[in-house]
Amino acid sequence: MLKNNEKVMDKIVDLCKSKGFVYPGSEIYGGLANTWDYGPLGVELKNNIKRAWMKKFVQENKYNVGLDSAILMNPQTWVASGHIGGFSDPLMDCKECKTRHRADNLIEDFDGTNVAGWSNEQMMDYIKEKGITCPNCGKQNFTDIRQFNLMFKTFQGVTEDSKSELYLRPETAQGIFVNFANIQRTTRKKVPFGVAQVGKSFRNEITPGNFIFRVREFEQMELEFFCKPGTDLEWFDYWRSYCRNFLLSLGLKEENIRLRDHDKEELCFYSKATTDFEYLFPFGWGELWGVADRTDYDLTQHINTSGKSLEYFDPETNEKYIPYVIEPSLGVERLFLSVVTEAYDEEEIVSTDKDGKEKRETRTVMHFHPALAPFKAAVLPLVKKLTPKAEEVYDMLSKKFMVDFDEAGTIGKRYRRQDEIGTPFCITYDFDTLEKDNCVTVRDRDTMQQERVNINDLVAYLEAKMTF
Amino acid sequence: MLKNNEKVMDKIVDLCKSKGFVYPGSEIYGGLANTWDYGPLGVELKNNIKRAWMKKFVQENKYNVGLDSAILMNPQTWVASGHIGGFSDPLMDCKECKTRHRADNLIEDFDGTNVAGWSNEQMMDYIKEKGITCPNCGKQNFTDIRQFNLMFKTFQGVTEDSKSELYLRPETAQGIFVNFANIQRTTRKKVPFGVAQVGKSFRNEITPGNFIFRVREFEQMELEFFCKPGTDLEWFDYWRSYCRNFLLSLGLKEENIRLRDHDKEELCFYSKATTDFEYLFPFGWGELWGVADRTDYDLTQHINTSGKSLEYFDPETNEKYIPYVIEPSLGVERLFLSVVTEAYDEEEIVSTDKDGKEKRETRTVMHFHPALAPFKAAVLPLVKKLTPKAEEVYDMLSKKFMVDFDEAGTIGKRYRRQDEIGTPFCITYDFDTLEKDNCVTVRDRDTMQQERVNINDLVAYLEAKMTF
Repeated sequence: MLKNNEKVMDKIVDLCKSKGFVYPGSEIYGGLANTWDYGPLGVELKNNIKRAWMKKFVQENKYNVGLDSAILMNPQTWVASGHIGGFSDPLMDCKECKTRHRADNLIEDFDGTNVAGWSNEQMMDYIKEKGITCPNCGKQNFTDIRQFNLMFKTFQGVTEDSKSELYLRPETAQGIFVNFANIQRTTRKKVPFGVAQVGKSFRNEITPGNFIFRVREFEQMELEFFCKPGTDLEWFDYWRSYCRNFLLSLGLKEENIRLRDHDKEELCFYSKATTDFEYLFPFGWGELWGVADRTDYDLTQHINTSGKSLEYFDPETNEKYIPYVIEPSLGVERLFLSVVTEAYDEEEIVSTDKDGKEKRETRTVMHFHPALAPFKAAVLPLVKKLTPKAEEVYDMLSKKFMVDFDEAGTIGKRYRRQDEIGTPFCITYDFDTLEKDNCVTVRDRDTMQQERVNINDLVAYLEAKMTF
Repeated sequence: MLKNNEKVMDKIVDLCKSKGFVYPGSEIYGGLANTWDYGPLGVELKNNIKRAWMKKFVQENKYNVGLDSAILMNPQTWVASGHIGGFSDPLMDCKECKTRHRADNLIEDFDGTNVAGWSNEQMMDYIKEKGITCPNCGKQNFTDIRQFNLMFKTFQGVTEDSKSELYLRPETAQGIFVNFANIQRTTRKKVPFGVAQVGKSFRNEITPGNFIFRVREFEQMELEFFCKPGTDLEWFDYWRSYCRNFLLSLGLKEENIRLRDHDKEELCFYSKATTDFEYLFPFGWGELWGVADRTDYDLTQHINTSGKSLEYFDPETNEKYIPYVIEPSLGVERLFLSVVTEAYDEEEIVSTDKDGKEKRETRTVMHFHPALAPFKAAVLPLVKKLTPKAEEVYDMLSKKFMVDFDEAGTIGKRYRRQDEIGTPFCITYDFDTLEKDNCVTVRDRDTMQQERVNINDLVAYLEAKMTF
């Protein structure tokens, strides 16, 4: 089995494209700077990932409820959250070759120095002092650093005047904060409780890249968990371990996940504690999930900006307080890439052919957890004559879950094709099924073992395998 | 039972807000022109609607596959599709009171004349001839008509120059057309086949309104079905009837749906046939679903603009052709509003109290199809002492689907609360459950009948009710 650091990004990207997981966006027009479209298999995997998160974080968790707030929000939201003032990258141009760079990245790439919390002047001085040069032309002749806001701007209404200037949300979290009082009142939830949301966000990154790892249009799965001040660090631990268990339950291996606590210099000024979950991608460790204790910062900002009361009245103690917030924030695309990386394998298979000769071949296989796999099963008629009967099995199963049907080529070839797209079970309909026992052969993708299962038991058999 | 035209919009909007289905967007900041946030119950209903569509249009339909393409696309897409040139509203200002109006709406509201296909000059002449006045101030002193493009514009990259001008997609359909060749190749699908997509679109409508009926940010469920030219009208009929059955299967009543065929003048120039599904909303008949025969217009436009071949090679007849397209296009919010309208009812209940006196009360109830209901069931411990045991039932059920838990107030009050949010089944855990028979009382929302069901059979009992 390949280890993650033996897996090659290009091969994974190729498989994603050729099998219909992920296509380059707007490809017939030469694409559009690192946008990606999720094909027939990708949309299933993506939806399964989102459903798995909603299942664990809302359906099965008695503390939490869901929300789906609009992408377009009143711009005062971004004044309160600090995104209009401070959500920006420090950019500088090379005067020689006219390329544009992020000052923080130049320093980090140069000697690994973490510049979190540095001012523009500190970064500029450091770049000059160390003689850091343009990665494109090798000269050192930069402009000053200017802050560039990362929010996409647009205009609503019929004129482009500044009154109707809007932003595409850079995070889903603020949609939760502005609805805190509405949700608390209408659900009659008592603190502690959480609000979970899945939705698109947009950031005008100047250097998107690494396939779907850093993109400008992305989808977040964010939980804002409201708790009593003083209990926040307990809940911080609770959610860190909840998140970790979630990743393990989806089949990510312990060895490919590491938790990194932010030290004091790296922490946002309002955060009491932050832990990054990092995953070992083929290009190295990268941030997957951030869990932060955001204190009462966001609610306080919204109280100050809107003039509305967002305090919580505790009916048991008769106290009023602004809840503290624990925020686990995860990107769908990054979890998608983790799941695809984890699943990818090239295995050497030894088999014996008709003449008793040993045959070695390499199979590419995606070991997706059955709950995440795009197709839960593929129905294969042994020969074309059996197609109508096999279709009955397909029809029955497809009422319950996504199932593929494949009648082209030898059974062995069809197995390989399903292995490559990660279908956990292949179901072969043969003459015995029809004439003898009403049983089909179920072949397991991972063990490659086969067993006979009665058609009447198939749904329950597959459902049991999907539980997580 | 209330008929649709007896249902009052304000009551439905109030219920949606007070129960956590739909809140005004950015409400603490005074809102933002007809944006809406879907609360804890709304997000479940919305997700269930999207899943129901994906189930019927992808999972259970052997012709179709899914897609999830990016909102941000290469702008050439909108040149090809005609949106940059022609996707606009005819606007005019009232010089007296400075309000802005759509010329087509002014005429239609005045005497019902359908102006589809009219030029700006024709509309202007008609307005003058008929003496149509400003609905705000009653004067007739309009500016000329100017076309206003409905696409939201934004900028990608680090400068706001025209090179990086982008649009938020006004429809999901074009994401399917530009991926036609990628999808056909990677899925090895043969024509006829369809591609289904759920996703956000944005239109800068000048007059959004009627709650969530017309909004600027909305979600579409679009199918583009590719078929051989000449077979298109057959498939047009197939999909019209498929769509109709889908609506009926979700519980929309026949009397509240009508199909309206576009006549020749109303048809888009490239369309051979279009049928609107209209639904009887509380404010009257409104468009719910459009089914159109778009011929080979879109693929041909993309071939001409991109220079890429998007022809299909038919391996059976060795022919090459550009497929024709049937497009059923549905808005999630409109189906949401239809489902909520259909479900809403006020019923007079007659019961007998302890002293044998007849009691009459009105219950508000949402008769959602169990597959769509936010909560599938609510678990109610008869008394607080039974809470821990009832929680075991809740934990078991919540592994399978969304379940509520309610221990506050009398059982009768809890029933009413669940009726109002459309929970199809209330499950009461009582002393007999614990001491005698391991059975709970299951009360049906619609019939209000009760039956005893063994806890071991509960999951199967509920799952059977949800089938559609």
